Amino acid sequence: MNISIGTEVSVKKAFTQEEVNSYTRTSGDSNPIHYDPEYAKKTPFNKPIVPGLQVASLFGGLLGSKLPGKGTIHIGQTLQFLKPVYMNEEVEATIKIISIRSDKPVITFQVTCSKENGEIAITGEAVVIYKREYFK
Amino acid sequence: MNISIGTEVSVKKAFTQEEVNSYTRTSGDSNPIHYDPEYAKKTPFNKPIVPGLQVASLFGGLLGSKLPGKGTIHIGQTLQFLKPVYMNEEVEATIKIISIRSDKPVITFQVTCSKENGEIAITGEAVVIYKREYFK
Repeated sequence: MNISIGTEVSVKKAFTQEEVNSYTRTSGDSNPIHYDPEYAKKTPFNKPIVPGLQVASLFGGLLGSKLPGKGTIHIGQTLQFLKPVYMNEEVEATIKIISIRSDKPVITFQVTCSKENGEIAITGEAVVIYKREYFK
Repeated sequence: MNISIGTEVSVKKAFTQEEVNSYTRTSGDSNPIHYDPEYAKKTPFNKPIVPGLQVASLFGGLLGSKLPGKGTIHIGQTLQFLKPVYMNEEVEATIKIISIRSDKPVITFQVTCSKENGEIAITGEAVVIYKREYFK
């Protein structure tokens, strides 16, 4: 994969209730907004939503597997959660290189998660150190 | 739970390989650094590590379940990943209220994940809107 300004990769994903349950069991999140349709109906969200940080896991997946892939050390992340992502709703996560330091192997990505209706659910930046030579 | 500057809650957790596998299957992260001891041995980490964003899921769990709990809308997150967290290594995640806006129900937390050896693995800030009245 070409590591230069503007290079980007994307992935589409719909989170299932089972995937969310597995995530919240591990994270210790018992909030019913993530699994209870009756409860969710009485809130501004109306339907159960995927935890924002779980949606953001797609950025980690892209960084660790695709761009730059092996040799990636995730050192920083900012996230703004702008819109809810619902169970079984397909979203598209994209990471795009916006800067590469010349003195160190530090790469900054713009990260975006968009919904099928065109809304942006998450935006932010990821910073990684890329040391391919140490990760054969 | 008392919502005022300085209020904090913590949770201890060791991530199992099975929990990491479940997370990376969903996030699409096939990087062997998260499951292959032979591969990890040849890298600066030496052993398989938990994805940084998965460790950070503990902050989401605390926000959604403990402080403030129901009625929390996670709107922003910053994270600096300072040290790796290994499989089955116990860490302690803490969230602490550092500011509360007077004009809007917006609460900012300092988030910290520390290791048993005293090192800080993750630091950052979380921002939430707290609307308990809409989440009965």
